[in-house]
Amino acid sequence: MHFGDQLAHAIAKTGPLCVGLDPHSGRIPALFGEGLPGVEAFFMAVLDRLAGKASIIKPQIAFFERHGPDGLALMARLCAHAKTRKLLVLMDAKRGDIGSTASAYAAAYLGPNAWVWCDAITVNPYMGMDTLEPFLSVADDNDKGVIVLVRTSNPGAADFEDLMIEKNTLYQHIAQTLAPFARERKGPQSGWSSLMVVVGATAPHEAQRLRHILPHSPFLVPGYGAQGGSAKDAVIAARDGQGVVVNSSRGVLYPQNADQATTLKDWETLFDAALARTHKDIMRALEG
Amino acid sequence: MHFGDQLAHAIAKTGPLCVGLDPHSGRIPALFGEGLPGVEAFFMAVLDRLAGKASIIKPQIAFFERHGPDGLALMARLCAHAKTRKLLVLMDAKRGDIGSTASAYAAAYLGPNAWVWCDAITVNPYMGMDTLEPFLSVADDNDKGVIVLVRTSNPGAADFEDLMIEKNTLYQHIAQTLAPFARERKGPQSGWSSLMVVVGATAPHEAQRLRHILPHSPFLVPGYGAQGGSAKDAVIAARDGQGVVVNSSRGVLYPQNADQATTLKDWETLFDAALARTHKDIMRALEG
Repeated sequence: MHFGDQLAHAIAKTGPLCVGLDPHSGRIPALFGEGLPGVEAFFMAVLDRLAGKASIIKPQIAFFERHGPDGLALMARLCAHAKTRKLLVLMDAKRGDIGSTASAYAAAYLGPNAWVWCDAITVNPYMGMDTLEPFLSVADDNDKGVIVLVRTSNPGAADFEDLMIEKNTLYQHIAQTLAPFARERKGPQSGWSSLMVVVGATAPHEAQRLRHILPHSPFLVPGYGAQGGSAKDAVIAARDGQGVVVNSSRGVLYPQNADQATTLKDWETLFDAALARTHKDIMRALEG
Repeated sequence: MHFGDQLAHAIAKTGPLCVGLDPHSGRIPALFGEGLPGVEAFFMAVLDRLAGKASIIKPQIAFFERHGPDGLALMARLCAHAKTRKLLVLMDAKRGDIGSTASAYAAAYLGPNAWVWCDAITVNPYMGMDTLEPFLSVADDNDKGVIVLVRTSNPGAADFEDLMIEKNTLYQHIAQTLAPFARERKGPQSGWSSLMVVVGATAPHEAQRLRHILPHSPFLVPGYGAQGGSAKDAVIAARDGQGVVVNSSRGVLYPQNADQATTLKDWETLFDAALARTHKDIMRALEG
């Protein structure tokens, strides 16, 4: 099924919540064990508890890559497990390079012989459209998605993304350049494109303007919660409950006192409550 | 030793030639074997033949990442071998992400517990200075370098990098923003900064202007040879034979007929000739 339609189905099922897999050292409860085996046991438990609340996950590859080949092999096992759980996997890798190199990245993550299962990957547009096209091409052939950084959620986004190019900001200019590519990639069932964009929850007004430029692109929205964006800000670009994917990592993964849990049952109670609270916060904003 | 000084020493020893490690499938001579073991045997042989001609290598991580954890473990073995050969390793990874994530990447590649040996890493500036600072900070603490994409060598560089921000292009604006960070990081012996920038050989006029903006930053120059940049264009920003690192991948690695070599001796002859020819081409441009 077309990636845009898969995403729309996932959002229709459990809403826009996407759980970010960010293994911060020192925050994983000791009951799951130490080191990489502890990370793996923890995230396997997380994946097993998302049903009914979240159908999308976003592994942050940097935190696995930090541990080299062993960390990445672990991440691949998590993604394979996520697939059996019918979760959509958005790989947060922010890759980008010239033609033949971009083709290697595209094959690595989106191709039929990818080393890790994922449904879409984040990419960086700085080097130009010829660096994005290999990703789009491999994605098209394999019902995958491409998620282009447009307006990120960090304070430094103002440094370059917000620079004025005549009457538009750089990120608006990039969005305009992406628009025809997004339009060509609308899902036959949902109308949502397989070309997504990253638009931070910390920039709600910018998100509204970007929705006009990119009416068919689902927005991947970081910055909700820990980075200061409200649920209302995070879903501001939604249309009929669709078209936004709101990421929460720390708020769901590491609820208060959960690191002190001494039994799996205690941890599950705290985790389930944090997940339900986050899910409800976003659904209420979406419906309100 | 400060990275800027290490780089200046390397250039003083054998000139600005940097050999890119790009394992293109189908171009590695069959005599080295099939699959990943063939890739490893080939590049180990390459590393053993660089003495006197090149002291710098640039692994393109995408081509190893294409093969997942096994490919990356192989790359780590190559980098460890390069270190024993006293080669400087510039990791071409083009990473970039928000604060805590950038810190994970910085630790992965430049920190004391990095999973792979490298002396510097390429990074993408699109998301702003707060995404570069974690790399600079870890680099400073460990005598490593950071190489920021400024003006790349691909045709698509014109899409966004060349956009006008008032009277400057985006890439010039980024260079101006980097300038004080580069100035703070000059090597005590050489005066060359540990903050490098990528400036393609396909943009020689742009390189001259960038040299004025960034007088202390060594330029990593892709695009020489296969992408159409001449040796003269590639070294245009050099000062007294210093301050440029000229990458050649395919031109050195895959000389004509070398894939047909049936004995190691035959391959060595063809490889040595291509390496010497490339080295001479760049040295002549530098001296002329």
